[in-house]
Amino acid sequence: MPLAAGRPYLAIPGPSVMPDAVLQAMHQPAPNIYEGDIVAMVQGMVPDLKRVARTEGKVAIYIANGHGAWEASLANIASTGDKVLVCVTGRFGHGWADMAEGLGLDVTKLDFGTKEGIDAARLEEALRADTGHGYKAVLFSHVDTATSLLNDPRPLRAALDAAGHPALLMADCIASMACEEFEMDAWGVDIAVTGSQKGLMVPPGLSFVFVNAKAEEARKAVPRVSRYWDWTPRINPEFFYNFFGGTAPTHHLFGLRAALDILHDEGIETVWARHVTLSRAIWAACEAWGEDNGALRMNVANRTLRSHAVTALGLGERNGAALRRWVADNAGVTLGLGLGMATKEDPNGDGFFRIGHMGHLNAHMVLGMLGTLEAGMQAIGVHHGPNALSAAAEVIAAG
Amino acid sequence: MPLAAGRPYLAIPGPSVMPDAVLQAMHQPAPNIYEGDIVAMVQGMVPDLKRVARTEGKVAIYIANGHGAWEASLANIASTGDKVLVCVTGRFGHGWADMAEGLGLDVTKLDFGTKEGIDAARLEEALRADTGHGYKAVLFSHVDTATSLLNDPRPLRAALDAAGHPALLMADCIASMACEEFEMDAWGVDIAVTGSQKGLMVPPGLSFVFVNAKAEEARKAVPRVSRYWDWTPRINPEFFYNFFGGTAPTHHLFGLRAALDILHDEGIETVWARHVTLSRAIWAACEAWGEDNGALRMNVANRTLRSHAVTALGLGERNGAALRRWVADNAGVTLGLGLGMATKEDPNGDGFFRIGHMGHLNAHMVLGMLGTLEAGMQAIGVHHGPNALSAAAEVIAAG
Amino acid sequence: MPLAAGRPYLAIPGPSVMPDAVLQAMHQPAPNIYEGDIVAMVQGMVPDLKRVARTEGKVAIYIANGHGAWEASLANIASTGDKVLVCVTGRFGHGWADMAEGLGLDVTKLDFGTKEGIDAARLEEALRADTGHGYKAVLFSHVDTATSLLNDPRPLRAALDAAGHPALLMADCIASMACEEFEMDAWGVDIAVTGSQKGLMVPPGLSFVFVNAKAEEARKAVPRVSRYWDWTPRINPEFFYNFFGGTAPTHHLFGLRAALDILHDEGIETVWARHVTLSRAIWAACEAWGEDNGALRMNVANRTLRSHAVTALGLGERNGAALRRWVADNAGVTLGLGLGMATKEDPNGDGFFRIGHMGHLNAHMVLGMLGTLEAGMQAIGVHHGPNALSAAAEVIAAG
Amino acid sequence: MPLAAGRPYLAIPGPSVMPDAVLQAMHQPAPNIYEGDIVAMVQGMVPDLKRVARTEGKVAIYIANGHGAWEASLANIASTGDKVLVCVTGRFGHGWADMAEGLGLDVTKLDFGTKEGIDAARLEEALRADTGHGYKAVLFSHVDTATSLLNDPRPLRAALDAAGHPALLMADCIASMACEEFEMDAWGVDIAVTGSQKGLMVPPGLSFVFVNAKAEEARKAVPRVSRYWDWTPRINPEFFYNFFGGTAPTHHLFGLRAALDILHDEGIETVWARHVTLSRAIWAACEAWGEDNGALRMNVANRTLRSHAVTALGLGERNGAALRRWVADNAGVTLGLGLGMATKEDPNGDGFFRIGHMGHLNAHMVLGMLGTLEAGMQAIGVHHGPNALSAAAEVIAAG
Repeated sequence: MPLAAGRPYLAIPGPSVMPDAVLQAMHQPAPNIYEGDIVAMVQGMVPDLKRVARTEGKVAIYIANGHGAWEASLANIASTGDKVLVCVTGRFGHGWADMAEGLGLDVTKLDFGTKEGIDAARLEEALRADTGHGYKAVLFSHVDTATSLLNDPRPLRAALDAAGHPALLMADCIASMACEEFEMDAWGVDIAVTGSQKGLMVPPGLSFVFVNAKAEEARKAVPRVSRYWDWTPRINPEFFYNFFGGTAPTHHLFGLRAALDILHDEGIETVWARHVTLSRAIWAACEAWGEDNGALRMNVANRTLRSHAVTALGLGERNGAALRRWVADNAGVTLGLGLGMATKEDPNGDGFFRIGHMGHLNAHMVLGMLGTLEAGMQAIGVHHGPNALSAAAEVIAAG
Repeated sequence: MPLAAGRPYLAIPGPSVMPDAVLQAMHQPAPNIYEGDIVAMVQGMVPDLKRVARTEGKVAIYIANGHGAWEASLANIASTGDKVLVCVTGRFGHGWADMAEGLGLDVTKLDFGTKEGIDAARLEEALRADTGHGYKAVLFSHVDTATSLLNDPRPLRAALDAAGHPALLMADCIASMACEEFEMDAWGVDIAVTGSQKGLMVPPGLSFVFVNAKAEEARKAVPRVSRYWDWTPRINPEFFYNFFGGTAPTHHLFGLRAALDILHDEGIETVWARHVTLSRAIWAACEAWGEDNGALRMNVANRTLRSHAVTALGLGERNGAALRRWVADNAGVTLGLGLGMATKEDPNGDGFFRIGHMGHLNAHMVLGMLGTLEAGMQAIGVHHGPNALSAAAEVIAAG
Repeated sequence: MPLAAGRPYLAIPGPSVMPDAVLQAMHQPAPNIYEGDIVAMVQGMVPDLKRVARTEGKVAIYIANGHGAWEASLANIASTGDKVLVCVTGRFGHGWADMAEGLGLDVTKLDFGTKEGIDAARLEEALRADTGHGYKAVLFSHVDTATSLLNDPRPLRAALDAAGHPALLMADCIASMACEEFEMDAWGVDIAVTGSQKGLMVPPGLSFVFVNAKAEEARKAVPRVSRYWDWTPRINPEFFYNFFGGTAPTHHLFGLRAALDILHDEGIETVWARHVTLSRAIWAACEAWGEDNGALRMNVANRTLRSHAVTALGLGERNGAALRRWVADNAGVTLGLGLGMATKEDPNGDGFFRIGHMGHLNAHMVLGMLGTLEAGMQAIGVHHGPNALSAAAEVIAAG
Repeated sequence: MPLAAGRPYLAIPGPSVMPDAVLQAMHQPAPNIYEGDIVAMVQGMVPDLKRVARTEGKVAIYIANGHGAWEASLANIASTGDKVLVCVTGRFGHGWADMAEGLGLDVTKLDFGTKEGIDAARLEEALRADTGHGYKAVLFSHVDTATSLLNDPRPLRAALDAAGHPALLMADCIASMACEEFEMDAWGVDIAVTGSQKGLMVPPGLSFVFVNAKAEEARKAVPRVSRYWDWTPRINPEFFYNFFGGTAPTHHLFGLRAALDILHDEGIETVWARHVTLSRAIWAACEAWGEDNGALRMNVANRTLRSHAVTALGLGERNGAALRRWVADNAGVTLGLGLGMATKEDPNGDGFFRIGHMGHLNAHMVLGMLGTLEAGMQAIGVHHGPNALSAAAEVIAAG
């Protein structure tokens, strides 16, 4: 009996669920883009964006997806042949590295696998070995959306400092910004990159590069940056169109304004804390399902390494895909597919799936999603440990 | 820690959750109301409405809420001083009776309390006693939204037939239409009344009176019906504006068209079955919570008398109100308050609450709502039996 | 060459063009209707509605169209057999009279034709003749939407006073409220009726009855008013649902709140003045087109008798219908059809049409509509005088 | 008396007026971006986009504004140091040239001023002089949005052919696509660039690069193209995310789907013809205003060189700015400011303004805009010739 004919719930790791106020704000006529209200609106958004990233630095707004922001951030600090060091903890580290190679950079990867996160000691060692200070930057994913690993920036900063290496520390915060605790300035991140469609709760199409003074300095050393990616006029606009290197993305801006209001009304620290508690509810259920020889396993065993915005899971054989299909068809929930988890035995990664739990998210949505997972495992015949849903509810009750 | 900052879920017994397609359809410019597309749209909606009520009869559409439809239905079949018999199983039976009194009708009530539903034998007895066939109609609530009692129309029809009484059988289907199995023609209901904002998934503001040939006959015997309530031009319109006794409710019509498409795409019988399964999941959880000296009690003990669209519950002392407040503030769920449940000990009915589970509803929404109830009981310190959430998930899994 | 493929403009005399902010406000999830924000919102709307009608009296809100408000207003002040006097200046006077007859009232009509408005002397004469003070009320249309006649309430009040007659003065302001200057209290109107879909710029489905203390007194003398129409609980609500006699019309309320903000931000007197200037622009064009043996004639010759919200026009033979069709198909403008203008020679009234110019209306919309009228007359071969469009533009320029 | 309080009309040269259906389509929840309906939707949009550009070639979709598409198109066919020849007929030719310089290309400009369009003979001469065939491409604006010059691509193609030069012919169609007649394949354009926010009637944020086989060949000769700009995976996607080089711009895609339906329902040739007739109406009015020593002058004297999507005008001294302000404040119309028209006497270009007349546009919108211009000139005291509005209406009447 299909029980999906109600309000669908999209629980993929981005785009996240858009608040009604955001979609409503986007539903209005095109505005003047040369003068008028939009100018003040954008000028007011800049400090509000920076409050999300916790920086006194600057922000460049790009009409682009996250891949565009990846490219933009690199184009401003390195030229063909320059070296960068990429810490890889899953698919998206490889992705950023690939963008770097597309720009002709000389990429060195440190691969930390898909389960353990970055080993700062190994990073420090690599930096010490770079005696000529060839690396212009160290790149890492704050959260890898595929593995759901969370990398704490603080040990990485410490590694750079210990090695006395001047490379920029560049964080991919696409899957983490406005979800995970993040202190760009206090933690010594020089460049942070994010997109609109996850913690910022706006449809995909905008991305952001936050830069500090050191990054601005690094820009000056780059002889040529293409006009579209050059952050200089975007962060220090003389004219309004400089903000966007041309025509403003009017309707996304309307949506972003609404989203920033929602975030700051709740308070960014409260937003982070909400993600922590809701994640703990998810983990409690998943851990319980794994008891008693249950098949379910979270990809990241260590709680301190788990993202609070996305959780990657394995269910054995093809059960991940079967479970995704069941909850979509029978319960109205769309889960994310497993990414970068293919093995020889499971070439399509069908044993895996991901839960997105980022952005506009409350206890009802999470507990409902967990309920449908248990129903789905029951329906497709996957053994699971007991008391998972009550365990999750208890976390919610404790707050 | 407030965990409500996500998509809110309204689980009151109407208005129900509006599908995105309905709200989207309502977001358009005003149309011409004298000619053009709207005329064909309304003509096409009439048969689709009748398919929901399962009748070959006719339908009058009123710009009014359910109270308006109550008044309309009575105004067409009775005049000042005429007698009607009202079977009361909760607050809304009293409400309809009150509308009848407002029209100057002579109302007799059979009160069946708030837990047991209509006793058809007692009705038959009352009808037999009316040897002069004074009662123009027998009124009843298919579902009483306050008590959540479901009254099967079939035994009532049988009682009328057994008594050989010519009164019209009039069903209040406001809380049941497009949720509960209902066969107006096959079950011998003469007049059925409903509103837009529950199973029909459209904002409040439209209501409907379905009438069969016998009801049309009864209308002819009424010397005068006020123009607004007279169903004659509405069910047999000569001009387009007759449908609505004046200006058409344009935006509600756009929404209703979208809602009827959703209902018939799913299939009305599938819609009913979905409500049955989702209700069983709710009942399974509630019954489990009541075990082991748990405080929770559903108002209706007998499963065959329970509505599949709304569930009234008691939690002891002021816990109903406290639970409602907790899930609203901490989990993003709005529950219905207890209605008509006040006692001397609990003058505000604060021990009670209601769950609306009607209309645009899927497994995710229900399981999430149940999860927040358990979290809420835990948080406010209400003892409850174990395994409730898993029991609900099992019902969903079984489909 | 069809030139209609742009943003359509609906220039019928209601529903009027809905502001984007109104439609946007209506596009949101269903709210709780038992408690919460909606309660304060409605309480705040009551004074804002009264500021539109310029009354210190009270307002009853009905889920109904204008015909419903007509019926409601009468049901509260008269009973079967009571007498009312209706001043008819077009179709809608007959319409209200018909609603009165539907309630069993004894209706006397004073018919003033379709071109001259109410003759207050004749009214006074009729009132003096009613020596027994049988008339409970004098009904009139502030603006008749069919003829576009504007009736000044002041001479009518004076006639009542001069005759020393206690009848209530009841104004149909459906086509005029928030368009035409109107001072309910200062001008001595006892009951004013309006709807949501014209000057109030909200989709059809809500209507309003404003009442002063004298009308409230009259209500007390009526032995029985049906529950739905009884204004008593609506104007003095004990519970929130009393406002609407049951379920609140949630989404219309969201829209109305936005519309009232728009009106009061502009200022109701500025709104009236805007309608005056825009009307003068229309009249200047129409008068110019009628020069030089042009075929076009406004129905109302006397400027002081012309509505500032709607203009009825004749174009000779079938040209009205042909013009309407041409501007719809070729220019994107929908005009109103002629109403109640049929003659023996023109049984469908095809020589006539109407321009709605009410509500959310600016110079661009009006000048564009006039431009398409001239293009249309040119295209279908209707002779028209010169310089009409410039004459209209000059009125706009003068402001 | 401000007469702007109605539906505002944005008559700037982009973003254009968004159809209701487009905004409505964008108002929906985030979809799955890994699988499901969006995949088929995008695959179906590709041929529909190509039908707009009239090409059997391919199309790369970029999340970017027009400046991004400018950069993308060049990045795929030239590398640092490569030469391109830019035909400049206003500000946007300089703009594209500037993007080329940002990529390190060696740019030669042929400047044809702001009033006369490209002289194909001069282009041919320059190409013949390039005996080493150093120019990789000839760039030109199909329409320059600042000067409103229209450049016919056919003589440019002929010049290339006559000179036997292998350079690619690259057209900036940002302000012209889906407005002006354009036959990419038949006219021998190798690369055409456009954006979403003008003729395509979708908010800014998407842009498009159409390429033929010769352009694809040219791409192969470029050793490295940055990942975001590389059109190869976008035009031959292996995976769905290749279409957008990462996350899909979900809501813009919903809007674009609706816009393409509107365009193809009308028929692209009818769309072009509509723009021609509406432009002629505008020109007729502007020419008439300029008679009799009127101050108004269109920037482009020669009708065959005028864009049918935008018109640049001069009004003398500061009257352009004053007129723009008057119609915005008093009539609800927003005009474009003059761009690139500053002179020593008028350093801010305040004597100039522009009318956007592109996309979702009908006779009502154009005639209304013209009416407000006349009212504005009257109000601010600018002398203008007579009969302009009637002249425009006559063009509309003739169709």
